[in-house]
Amino acid sequence: MVKAGIIGSTGYAGQELVRILLQHPGVEIVWYGSRSYIDKKYSSIFGNMFQITDSTCMGEDIEELAGQADVIFTATPQGLCSSLVSEEVLSRTKVIDLSADFRIKDVAKYEEWYGIKHQSPGFIEEAVYGLCEANREDIKNARLIANPGCFPTCTVLSIYPLAKEGLIDMDTVIVDAKSGVSGAGRGAKTANLYCEVNESIKPYGVAVHRHTPEIEDQLSYASGKDVIINFTPHLVPMNRGILATSYAKLAGKLSYNEVKAVYDKYYGKEYFVRVLDENVFPETRWTEGSNFVDVNFKIDERTGRIIMMGAIDNVVKGAAGQAVQNMNIMFGFEENTGLKTIPMFP
Amino acid sequence: MVKAGIIGSTGYAGQELVRILLQHPGVEIVWYGSRSYIDKKYSSIFGNMFQITDSTCMGEDIEELAGQADVIFTATPQGLCSSLVSEEVLSRTKVIDLSADFRIKDVAKYEEWYGIKHQSPGFIEEAVYGLCEANREDIKNARLIANPGCFPTCTVLSIYPLAKEGLIDMDTVIVDAKSGVSGAGRGAKTANLYCEVNESIKPYGVAVHRHTPEIEDQLSYASGKDVIINFTPHLVPMNRGILATSYAKLAGKLSYNEVKAVYDKYYGKEYFVRVLDENVFPETRWTEGSNFVDVNFKIDERTGRIIMMGAIDNVVKGAAGQAVQNMNIMFGFEENTGLKTIPMFP
Amino acid sequence: MVKAGIIGSTGYAGQELVRILLQHPGVEIVWYGSRSYIDKKYSSIFGNMFQITDSTCMGEDIEELAGQADVIFTATPQGLCSSLVSEEVLSRTKVIDLSADFRIKDVAKYEEWYGIKHQSPGFIEEAVYGLCEANREDIKNARLIANPGCFPTCTVLSIYPLAKEGLIDMDTVIVDAKSGVSGAGRGAKTANLYCEVNESIKPYGVAVHRHTPEIEDQLSYASGKDVIINFTPHLVPMNRGILATSYAKLAGKLSYNEVKAVYDKYYGKEYFVRVLDENVFPETRWTEGSNFVDVNFKIDERTGRIIMMGAIDNVVKGAAGQAVQNMNIMFGFEENTGLKTIPMFP
Amino acid sequence: MVKAGIIGSTGYAGQELVRILLQHPGVEIVWYGSRSYIDKKYSSIFGNMFQITDSTCMGEDIEELAGQADVIFTATPQGLCSSLVSEEVLSRTKVIDLSADFRIKDVAKYEEWYGIKHQSPGFIEEAVYGLCEANREDIKNARLIANPGCFPTCTVLSIYPLAKEGLIDMDTVIVDAKSGVSGAGRGAKTANLYCEVNESIKPYGVAVHRHTPEIEDQLSYASGKDVIINFTPHLVPMNRGILATSYAKLAGKLSYNEVKAVYDKYYGKEYFVRVLDENVFPETRWTEGSNFVDVNFKIDERTGRIIMMGAIDNVVKGAAGQAVQNMNIMFGFEENTGLKTIPMFP
Repeated sequence: MVKAGIIGSTGYAGQELVRILLQHPGVEIVWYGSRSYIDKKYSSIFGNMFQITDSTCMGEDIEELAGQADVIFTATPQGLCSSLVSEEVLSRTKVIDLSADFRIKDVAKYEEWYGIKHQSPGFIEEAVYGLCEANREDIKNARLIANPGCFPTCTVLSIYPLAKEGLIDMDTVIVDAKSGVSGAGRGAKTANLYCEVNESIKPYGVAVHRHTPEIEDQLSYASGKDVIINFTPHLVPMNRGILATSYAKLAGKLSYNEVKAVYDKYYGKEYFVRVLDENVFPETRWTEGSNFVDVNFKIDERTGRIIMMGAIDNVVKGAAGQAVQNMNIMFGFEENTGLKTIPMFP
Repeated sequence: MVKAGIIGSTGYAGQELVRILLQHPGVEIVWYGSRSYIDKKYSSIFGNMFQITDSTCMGEDIEELAGQADVIFTATPQGLCSSLVSEEVLSRTKVIDLSADFRIKDVAKYEEWYGIKHQSPGFIEEAVYGLCEANREDIKNARLIANPGCFPTCTVLSIYPLAKEGLIDMDTVIVDAKSGVSGAGRGAKTANLYCEVNESIKPYGVAVHRHTPEIEDQLSYASGKDVIINFTPHLVPMNRGILATSYAKLAGKLSYNEVKAVYDKYYGKEYFVRVLDENVFPETRWTEGSNFVDVNFKIDERTGRIIMMGAIDNVVKGAAGQAVQNMNIMFGFEENTGLKTIPMFP
Repeated sequence: MVKAGIIGSTGYAGQELVRILLQHPGVEIVWYGSRSYIDKKYSSIFGNMFQITDSTCMGEDIEELAGQADVIFTATPQGLCSSLVSEEVLSRTKVIDLSADFRIKDVAKYEEWYGIKHQSPGFIEEAVYGLCEANREDIKNARLIANPGCFPTCTVLSIYPLAKEGLIDMDTVIVDAKSGVSGAGRGAKTANLYCEVNESIKPYGVAVHRHTPEIEDQLSYASGKDVIINFTPHLVPMNRGILATSYAKLAGKLSYNEVKAVYDKYYGKEYFVRVLDENVFPETRWTEGSNFVDVNFKIDERTGRIIMMGAIDNVVKGAAGQAVQNMNIMFGFEENTGLKTIPMFP
Repeated sequence: MVKAGIIGSTGYAGQELVRILLQHPGVEIVWYGSRSYIDKKYSSIFGNMFQITDSTCMGEDIEELAGQADVIFTATPQGLCSSLVSEEVLSRTKVIDLSADFRIKDVAKYEEWYGIKHQSPGFIEEAVYGLCEANREDIKNARLIANPGCFPTCTVLSIYPLAKEGLIDMDTVIVDAKSGVSGAGRGAKTANLYCEVNESIKPYGVAVHRHTPEIEDQLSYASGKDVIINFTPHLVPMNRGILATSYAKLAGKLSYNEVKAVYDKYYGKEYFVRVLDENVFPETRWTEGSNFVDVNFKIDERTGRIIMMGAIDNVVKGAAGQAVQNMNIMFGFEENTGLKTIPMFP
């Protein structure tokens, strides 16, 4: 049994990690970390866990934890993982970081967009960006995984084949994304109260959202060009789900079948990426509770643009599920072990 | 592998049956029945099933189906199962009926409350009421299961121990229940449109709801008395979940510990019934997507009454999950096989 | 023009007061009080007010305010109004308190249920309980109004005629109430985050909710007996609305028409109380945004009980709207001035 | 008093028309038309109207109606108004059509996008497109108003000043829009059931939505160029509201202040269009229940694009409210008569 520790187990991503790992046949959770709930029963915070786990929350002593766990998940705010990680820790255990600390290779860019000083820039180079469908081989032997952000996962996977094959003009990429409220975290903020969010939709972080450089980096790697995009996230009154609607000029005249073939080339054998049938477009509900990414596209001949759409469950493929997918790859499990849940509807 | 057929697989309960059975290690679905979608791909109706099942919907030929399936689930409107069932069918296969056709032993009472003529009264006597925690032994050898209604499951299980032990005055039982919208079914009715249901709560079926006699029957069996109750369901703007809040006079002065001991006596070894800690009350969210029933109680010394509360996921324990629990008992599986999903949150 | 000041104008009830008063033809708001947002533009907090009011938030200096305002509304947590009110204040202005400070005549009972010491018990006797339909005459000349709680308003008005006429057994009253989330206030608490409340229903304050003695007092006054009830509130995932479903034994055999006549006797001329047609039951959506109270009842001959139902918008008739209704009575306006908004749907 | 008749008064837009007109000081509703509910009490369909209107639904006899009404609103499916209108009708009454029948000047384009034959092409030329802020003068003397679509209203008004002044490259306009569910109408369709829509977001009509040519026409008139755009609507789980997020290349380097000045030039004196403060972006909740259009923009210097955002209540400014605004202009009322409701929150 792989022994897993979770730092930040009482946020939404942390709780989903617990939920997935408790149902994983090859993993045992040895540490439920939580700054706010030390010594409290985990199931007193999350009633779904009643009579399922009897464990109690512990702190963030990563040295101690590194001695007990084969893998540590950090589902914590930006800056925490980079302040905890060290050669000693990484020599004893593997770390999968769900925060943004190791996603951006250019430390100056990270510090500019996140507004904080990076605490361990020496490990950025080593860290592997854990977008499994793109970086599977590197993940296998990684010690430190930068688990992708929720918006980047959904956006990059829905654009990736066309960027890789040079079929779209990368200077014209515009991403309009929509997220459920769990993406905003479990902190007690007025802005995230039920009555503030319900029955409304709003854009936020317009032209300044922190996931922008992460998406740009990945699209740059894929296309071999320096990509700058527009990225506008919106908050949608629902618990889970991200939908990304992306627009770009096609590099030339392409038929549905030609583009479909490119998506199939990259995703035909991927368990988690589902390229939908023609004129069937992603809806977040069909991915809820699962690690699936549903993608599809529509060519608009009138404008010469292609609309690329993707949907995920932000808490699963956008966070905890992808982290476990990374763990599966690192520890030699089948990649979808513990992740075969069929999306729940309604 | 047990071969299962589903008549009515494209309603909400039917779809959940499919979802659970596809993840059950000992079952194969051989028949996706649907009156409305014959010859349509199942995954074209429910996008969550894309690349998970490739099956196509078939009709309702129960004779044909009885030859192929070891068990048939009927998740259909009242009156259909009783019109299909026959000695020939039951001699070849087992039937688990999710409708109300075989729940009420008194056919006159059934016909009065449901307003339709019973098509096969001869099988009512034989049918076993599939409330597993109460009737486990009888279920084992049954050919025909009357799978309990969603409100009765939640209500009866939260009152059962006290009724059985005679600790409450059965003449004073009042049940105020609240249900998510999936309980109203997937039929295209104006009353169930998003904008008609959202941002509102309403009572319905006041003093005439069809689940009333079913609850009364079960409480009568438990208490050994003729029980008549008040039952008022309400519609709540959420997809899944039932909460039942029940009130009764205590038969005498009882302490928390005394009542708790009675709940533990009946449910201490039940996997699916969770008696919560003192002053922790059921919330539907903690059961969502699972087969759990969360129950608890509060003694109000000022009034001499006890408030008994229960929460379930109406689509799982209130329908498809309990049907599979019955199937597990009938076919010798561990009772929680395929039903160990941890509730999903948020 | 009546000059109005609001202490606590940045909570949900406070904001609704602002919204109603800004549309009232005879009132001018002279003071937007707010402990948390002093010197901030009101419309920067509530974007609906952009280009409607240009005012800035001020503090809680009630002496200063008493010199400027003809009426002060306190939409603040329990204990604040009683700490601010004084003979000097009341000699210069009228006070309508939306908190519970002056609702309970027995100070010991108040202190027991609210767990705080009352700061000005000397004014309790003078304060008039502002349930307009019951206490209209006393309100006219009051200096200090205890504006009723949201649950008591809805509950008492739906039971009042039968309590008054002695048609129900007051020892058997059970109230099962359901509230939207705005009733929980605008404080930044984890429990009220979108993802914690959405897609779930739960009971809370079971047998100990603070509105219990307030309801009991009013039903005692109405019936002339000491009334003790069961009261269980539930939290429903919607912004606004309260539904109260109450149960009691009928004092004797009564027909629909006899009971209807009693409701009509009390409410036939009331603008805000709508007695619905037979077998049409209150739904919160039909009152949303308005000061209406929709009530109806159902006699269950099987049990000899009557089910009494009421629906209101908790922010309007349950708080700000009723406060303005009180103000209208006190200042000689038509009682429905500024309160004739037709409920908004959907 | 202006006498108004409504054909299609039992849809969501029709009901909102009733609600607004009943609160309008200069209008009397003389005809509640409804194909589905003839002879039914209007308040039995919409409970918010109980004791507010006692009227009964009538049919669609426009000849009869033209004799009684000074203005007829048609809130009906595409194709109905064009089949009813005639010189005789228009010589006796004014018609404000909330459907798309007279919005597109090119009848071939209408027939192509809507897939139906136009029944009275002879009146298209005469019809005035009722976007009040753009066509106020023409509206004054119109006999037939084509009330704008919900998406076009929101989109065009948020782009209009920049299109008019030539500050954006019209070949680069991309509109990503999000709508609440009331926009889908009140028809009983499975796709619009609560459980199908709740907890999900989806795109629809990708590259083929019927509002595309309407937006293109209006942007063409404004810019003096043939405009072709990408338009992608999405369905959001909320009752009301539209948010449009539009993207375009700036024609040159422009500062915030320069662009702001252009918005102010067009909207500085408009009551209903609110240009928000810098870095405050439209949210649908702040317009709910009102006729306001909240607009703002953000310049992204990294990409040279501008993001233009607009929010409306689709049922009010996107339908019934704008129709009444048109009526006010046509009949000489102050333009905001009956439309000054402050948005309701929460």
